[in-house]
Amino acid sequence: MDIAAVNVLSYEDFVDVFGNVVEKCPLIPAAVWSCRPFVSVKALEAAINEFIDALPESGKEGILRCHPDLAGRDLKSGTLTRESLEEQAEAGMDALSSLEAARMARLNEEYKKRFGFPFVICARMNEKAAILQQLSERCQNERIVERTRGIEETPRKCNHEAGKLGVWKCEIRSWRTLHLQSLPGLQR
Amino acid sequence: MDIAAVNVLSYEDFVDVFGNVVEKCPLIPAAVWSCRPFVSVKALEAAINEFIDALPESGKEGILRCHPDLAGRDLKSGTLTRESLEEQAEAGMDALSSLEAARMARLNEEYKKRFGFPFVICARMNEKAAILQQLSERCQNERIVERTRGIEETPRKCNHEAGKLGVWKCEIRSWRTLHLQSLPGLQR
Repeated sequence: MDIAAVNVLSYEDFVDVFGNVVEKCPLIPAAVWSCRPFVSVKALEAAINEFIDALPESGKEGILRCHPDLAGRDLKSGTLTRESLEEQAEAGMDALSSLEAARMARLNEEYKKRFGFPFVICARMNEKAAILQQLSERCQNERIVERTRGIEETPRKCNHEAGKLGVWKCEIRSWRTLHLQSLPGLQR
Repeated sequence: MDIAAVNVLSYEDFVDVFGNVVEKCPLIPAAVWSCRPFVSVKALEAAINEFIDALPESGKEGILRCHPDLAGRDLKSGTLTRESLEEQAEAGMDALSSLEAARMARLNEEYKKRFGFPFVICARMNEKAAILQQLSERCQNERIVERTRGIEETPRKCNHEAGKLGVWKCEIRSWRTLHLQSLPGLQR
């Protein structure tokens, strides 16, 4: 599927394909469909990021609040979205020792209590030890720093994917990548 | 649950309760949680409407695109949200004759082709004959008229509910009402 094929998708098919590019926010791709035609997949990603950037601060916090905790209740109850499950599994969140799990739960609660939104990190770009360390450190930040950081982590540059894909630089966050990877022959 | 109880909900519980107040847009209540404390449920509704009003036009179209067709594929496949199912059933959308169903399908397609978003109407405030007539008439409108109208229908004033409820004027759209109705002892 190249960008010309993306550009002729009905809004329904577009939302079916890109609906969870931003976790549990189908509103965002549904809105961005209005910006067709896109000259490239990169332009589509840019339109998504522009939409997010233009939201009021409460809207950005809303996006963060649509994210599940790492190794949290949704992972335990099996209700994670496919994208989040793949991401958390890749970072080893489904295989924490009981000590690690307890520390993660305590730090997640501390973070949410302090900021009013969950800790968001591009999990599959990190290992569990690094995630726990960052969570612990970021609990000490100011709210505005964490709001900005969380949003940056959401559509973060995943250039490490480039080598694996071999074709195009992955400048979108991991689950966005997974979505796009699943489209055969995607041209960038 | 009175407004004081709403105001102390964690964002996770708040999104659990109000997540589908705007169809498939948990981002909106998740964002509005930032505006606590609310002085009343009416103030909460106003905050939701203000958030929607402040979105760019593409965002408003995105909200419309998160709505299912009336008597469409989601109703047939049983994948409607609870709120939409109740609303469509109340308007008789699950009991159309084959002639009515064919006309509805044809007009839905015509509407979507013309405007790039689905026909949104507060279904439970209408009967199926009135819905078909309005759909047919609204297909002739200008795009900007329909975008505005669709958004108005989304959080539309449902004052007809007031009598039934007896306590408070329902100024929110029907599935919003259903959500709020389900909270025992809600004070307005």
